[in-house]
Order: sequence, then C-alpha cells, then structure tokens
Amino acid sequence: MIVTLTTDFGVGSPYVAAMKGVILSLAPETCLVDLTHAIPPQDIRAGALALAQAAPWFPPGTLHVAVVDPGVGSARQIVYVELLQQAFICPDNGLLSRLADRAAPSTIRAITNERLFRQPVSATFHGRDVMAPVAAHLSRGLPCEEVGPLLSSLVTLDWPGAEHVANKITGRIESIDSFGNLITNITGAMLADVPRDDRVGVFCDEHETRGIFRTYADQPPMTLVALLGSDDRLELAIVNDSAALMLGVRVGTEVELRW
Amino acid sequence: MIVTLTTDFGVGSPYVAAMKGVILSLAPETCLVDLTHAIPPQDIRAGALALAQAAPWFPPGTLHVAVVDPGVGSARQIVYVELLQQAFICPDNGLLSRLADRAAPSTIRAITNERLFRQPVSATFHGRDVMAPVAAHLSRGLPCEEVGPLLSSLVTLDWPGAEHVANKITGRIESIDSFGNLITNITGAMLADVPRDDRVGVFCDEHETRGIFRTYADQPPMTLVALLGSDDRLELAIVNDSAALMLGVRVGTEVELRW
Amino acid sequence: MIVTLTTDFGVGSPYVAAMKGVILSLAPETCLVDLTHAIPPQDIRAGALALAQAAPWFPPGTLHVAVVDPGVGSARQIVYVELLQQAFICPDNGLLSRLADRAAPSTIRAITNERLFRQPVSATFHGRDVMAPVAAHLSRGLPCEEVGPLLSSLVTLDWPGAEHVANKITGRIESIDSFGNLITNITGAMLADVPRDDRVGVFCDEHETRGIFRTYADQPPMTLVALLGSDDRLELAIVNDSAALMLGVRVGTEVELRW
Repeated sequence: MIVTLTTDFGVGSPYVAAMKGVILSLAPETCLVDLTHAIPPQDIRAGALALAQAAPWFPPGTLHVAVVDPGVGSARQIVYVELLQQAFICPDNGLLSRLADRAAPSTIRAITNERLFRQPVSATFHGRDVMAPVAAHLSRGLPCEEVGPLLSSLVTLDWPGAEHVANKITGRIESIDSFGNLITNITGAMLADVPRDDRVGVFCDEHETRGIFRTYADQPPMTLVALLGSDDRLELAIVNDSAALMLGVRVGTEVELRW
Repeated sequence: MIVTLTTDFGVGSPYVAAMKGVILSLAPETCLVDLTHAIPPQDIRAGALALAQAAPWFPPGTLHVAVVDPGVGSARQIVYVELLQQAFICPDNGLLSRLADRAAPSTIRAITNERLFRQPVSATFHGRDVMAPVAAHLSRGLPCEEVGPLLSSLVTLDWPGAEHVANKITGRIESIDSFGNLITNITGAMLADVPRDDRVGVFCDEHETRGIFRTYADQPPMTLVALLGSDDRLELAIVNDSAALMLGVRVGTEVELRW
Repeated sequence: MIVTLTTDFGVGSPYVAAMKGVILSLAPETCLVDLTHAIPPQDIRAGALALAQAAPWFPPGTLHVAVVDPGVGSARQIVYVELLQQAFICPDNGLLSRLADRAAPSTIRAITNERLFRQPVSATFHGRDVMAPVAAHLSRGLPCEEVGPLLSSLVTLDWPGAEHVANKITGRIESIDSFGNLITNITGAMLADVPRDDRVGVFCDEHETRGIFRTYADQPPMTLVALLGSDDRLELAIVNDSAALMLGVRVGTEVELRW
C-alpha cells in the first residue's frame, strides 16, 4: 500500500524518519511517499490546503497520514477517514476540512484501539506512537473497523468563498506557492461569465492588471498577470519572478475582479 | 534491505542523488530512506544526535549510511558498525558516539576492501565512492567480514550528562527541534524523584517556569512549559510558538531544576 | 523502472507530490527518487548543472523527469531524450545542454501524443499533466516511439569553457555547493601541465591561494584551498567553512591560475 506523510516537522526532521522507521518495522512492504514536511509549524490551514492540492492525485486507496497537531496529548481525537477514494489518518482538527468541502467523507472512525499503538505512547508525539503504527497495520490489510468506532462528523474550519455580485467578484489570496504566485479562492466555475480580455480588471492592494490569461508565457517577463492556475483557481503572478515579493502582499489580502 | 542516508549535504543536494544512483546501480532492490540531509555542514554532534533520535526506530538489520565528514580524504577511518541491532557505515569521527552511549557496539570493522569501492576514489567524496558502494554490496548480502578487519573501539565525543545534587539538577540545552523546542540532556530517569507540580522551578537564562507537564496543550498558548519530550528528555517549549526564538537561547545554555 | 524527479518547485512543494501521485496512479511499481527540488525558480542553468552532476550515477535506463519550465504553455516543446545511457523527459529549453556537452543524444523525440496526457491539460503545469503521465507510460514499458516524432536537435545553452594560454588558465565560478565551495569550469584535464605545489597561484577577486591540494583536510581549518573536486573540476574552499560567505563571491566571478 502507498502511505504518504504530511507534517509540520520541517524538511529533514529526524522525527519524520522515526515515523518511517516505525511504519517499515511493522509493514516493510509499504511504499512511503513524502507529501510535504514544509507545513509551517502548527498551521492547520496550510496543511489542509496541501492535502487538498496533492492527495487527490494519488491512486484510489492511498493512505495519507497527516500530522499537524498543536493539540497533541489533549482531548482532540485522532481519526481515520475515507474521502474522495483516498484514506486519511490525522488529528481531528480541521486538517481534512478543505477536502471535505469537495465531497462528504464516506467513513469517519475515531482511532481508539490502543492495542495497535506503540507502547508507551508519548504524550507529545502521537505521529510516531499512534498514527504511524495504525497506518502500518492498515497497510498490511487490517480492516478499518478495527481502529475504533464510527463518528458522525469531523471538526471543520471555515473556508470563506469568494463573492460574486453583478459585475464584480471579491475574493482573497488563500495561499502562495514556492514561485511566489498568489493563489486566490476564486474558482474556474466563478469565472464562467467573466470576459477574459482587457474588459476585466483584477485589483489586489494598489496593484492592477487587465485580462485573464492562459499561461505565464502569454505576457512578457516582469509583467503582472492573472490566470487560471493548475488547481482551477485564479492566481496572480509576475512572469519569471515572485509576485509575493514584488507586490509585498500576503495570504488574506483581498482580490477584486471588475468588468 | 533498507538503507537510510544521513548527510550534511543540504536538502536537495545533487550529491545525495549521486549516492542514491550509485547504490541503485549496484543493488536495485534497496529500499532507500532519507534519515536527514539537514545536518549543519560538518556538525558531527548534530549528526550524532539525529542518528540517535531516528535510527533505533527502524527495523533490526537496517543499514544507516551517515556522511558528516570534515576529515574526508585524511587518515580518519571509515567504519562498519553494528549497534542496537542496527548497522552503520560512517567515518569514525564520533558520529556514533551518542548511540554508543546507550549500548556497546557488537561489531566494529574498518572499511578497507578497495575492491568494493567505486574507482577512481575521489579524495573529497567518500560518501559516493566508498560508503555508497559498500552499502550496496552489503544490501545485496555481502557478509560484513568482507569489508575489512575488526577494530576494538570507535572515536568518541564527550556528551556531558546533567548533574543531580540534592534538590537540584543542572543540565543544558543539547538540541533545538524544528518547532523551536529546547531539548535538554536531562533524562526521564533523572526526574524520578522530582515533583511534577509547581514545587519545581525550571530556570533557563533569565527565564523561569514552574511544574513539569505532560504535553504542550496542558497550558495556554504562548506559555513557557517544561515537559518530558518524546525522546525521554526534559524540554522547554512555548505553547504554539518557538521557545528558541522567544527566549533567544541556544544549544549549550544551562538549564536548572530546583525543588 | 527508476524515475527521478528534478524541479524548481521547492523542497516540500505539494506540486511534487501531485506529480508522484500521477505517476504511481498509472505505474504503481515505479521506483521514484528525488534528484532535487531545490533548483532556484526558473533557473534552467542550475537545473542543467544538477542533472549533469547526478543523473550519470544512476543505472543505465533510468528515466529522469526534469521540470524547470518558465515557458510552460508556450510554443516550447517537451522532449524525450536518450543520452549517456540515461533517458530524460523535460522541456526543450537547454536543461540537457550541460549533459549534451559530454555526449551527443542518441535519441530525441518531441512528446506530442496527447492520448498519453492527463486530460484536461492545464496550461501552467505540464509537469503533472504531460511529463508525469508520459513517464509513467514509459515506466510500464511503452516503446519510446509512441511519444512522438524524432527531432534532429535540442535547444542549447552556451557553457563557456576556461581558457588556457601559456602559463595561465582563466575560468570562472560556475556553481556553489551547499558547503559554500566554489566550483569552477576548469576541468582536471586542463590541469595536466599545471604544477600542484606552491609554484601555482590561484586568484579569485582579491583573494589568492597557492598550490592545488588533494582534499580539504590537507590544510588547517579556515584556510583557503584550491583542489580538484569530486566532479573533476577545480574548486575553491575554505577548510571547515563556507568560501562563498567568507570570500563574498558569486557564480560568474573570474578565477585565474598562474604558474
């Protein structure tokens, strides 16, 4: 079975390697894939976005273990979830709420079966002592019923959508990728009626660009462009440079389209 | 066989990929796992700590190749070591001295059999030309006797322990993890007689906290807490933030418990 | 089949994970290896150097997918190339020009067979929608003829060589590794006639060192040394420290040998 790992431990953390060691000790045939370990510490929203961007591309039945867990050792539950044909193990703190906006989970279980855990369970590292061994058991074919009882719902975070009023859409920057491209919460579907040529203006802070393009290379280097990105969301980019640095804007900044 | 790689080459270094290529060329079935490549350049102590934190979690018989090698090309030896049911290939410069504090090696051999090396051997990259090919041969089942003669001991680094005098323990910060948690050299065993409630004071630089907690979430955000971490060592943390940044302290800073 | 990935997406980018998910969905048996994801954004030269440093160490027949693609969605072609017994999929923008300096490609094909692509093809992420699925099909044994028609040549970048005139070689710093070592374009072959002792002076900016050494440890810590590095190129290093930081020089700075 493929098991992916998503954490906020930082790239190169030996804690990630410890989790891999635990999984391979119990399930040596597992195919381990790093989804990302670069989630900013304890940033559940960033973890939820990364899972939504990457997990759906994996084969059906892939198990994704996600550890962004500021409440480790507290009353928060650890859950097993099936969603969009993918399986997930994570703390129930909103990490799956972005994916759950797209489709309802088909299974939610609390992970409570302590016989599956590594003992003694550290109060501060459930990734290693609870999530990794449970993932390994599932990777070896343990039926998911064994992990614990069904739950009826997950903790959700609010993901405010963009607003479309007459000839105006108001959204905001939701994430910034490693190129410095500014990715908004304005989806492709919302752009159905919007002209793509220079009748549309895209405004962000005091910056403005006109038209919605197909790709970066449609405009000259150093130009601010708006386009529909690979995750089907409107993004703002500086061709061959970083829009985040050049515009000095951040996650949360408002973006407006008017036409 | 599982082969892990630990280096100070930096995450994303093509030198790491070259080592993987060499191993897979000789032993295509090897399961390669990155332990970490984020060891600060030539920081043998940091490498020794990372190996001690992660290697014991791997299945017995895993081979760990560790390249933090400021003396590459000099008279320092390259060794094959069995320790805590794990196998290691590394320069004999103290990289295993933290693990060797826990248990004596059961086998130490100098790696001298040049027929196992990639030729010509570069004077500056024994990771690629010596350690990687020897790891690959072992991964394919070469008996370890073939790598070279037995040695009686390893180079050791000094790891000063904390001191316990009457109602006081004096230790120091030994490492800082990616969350900015300050991990000391005070072990769980040393805390056996120490009260966990607010009768105990924990002092670090001009900072103070009272009590030893079970987990971060036992205290409100932004609080300085002391707790026994997942490696069985006392650590100082700021709940939901970085103690390293907030307290401005470094590896080596003294930590004192008084009760 | 082994498939390596080289991108400028940044270490920990979920875009890398999406590519891996696409490949494993189509070809679950693929052995995925990260070559590097730390290429500076859109720096084709750095990508070409990393490929040249790492790809030749992999087993013959390894498929290397390289995505440094500032022209994504434009008229630039995506190509399949066989070179030095390795196979490559990348945009035709010079990414292979450093390797092609060593040996002529034995096969060059344009990747045009849209039936192999993931549909719909995003205009901004051909790594995920074109290169990853084509790599997966090849990994499963698709004959390379199926990807598209033969081409006669690749886009090349200029890699100026060092110049040897009488008792002088003039070259430049071509890359800087993660230790801060300054790697020049002066090859081992060019040094055949050069004395290795202190008759030779090595000059870089206002800095000077004498002699060409075998390895870092031949000189005391903090000394500037010149040596022939593991890629058979003259490099300048500060023993146990970073020459890049200490000397304050950059890629492109001239390096001169006089004897």
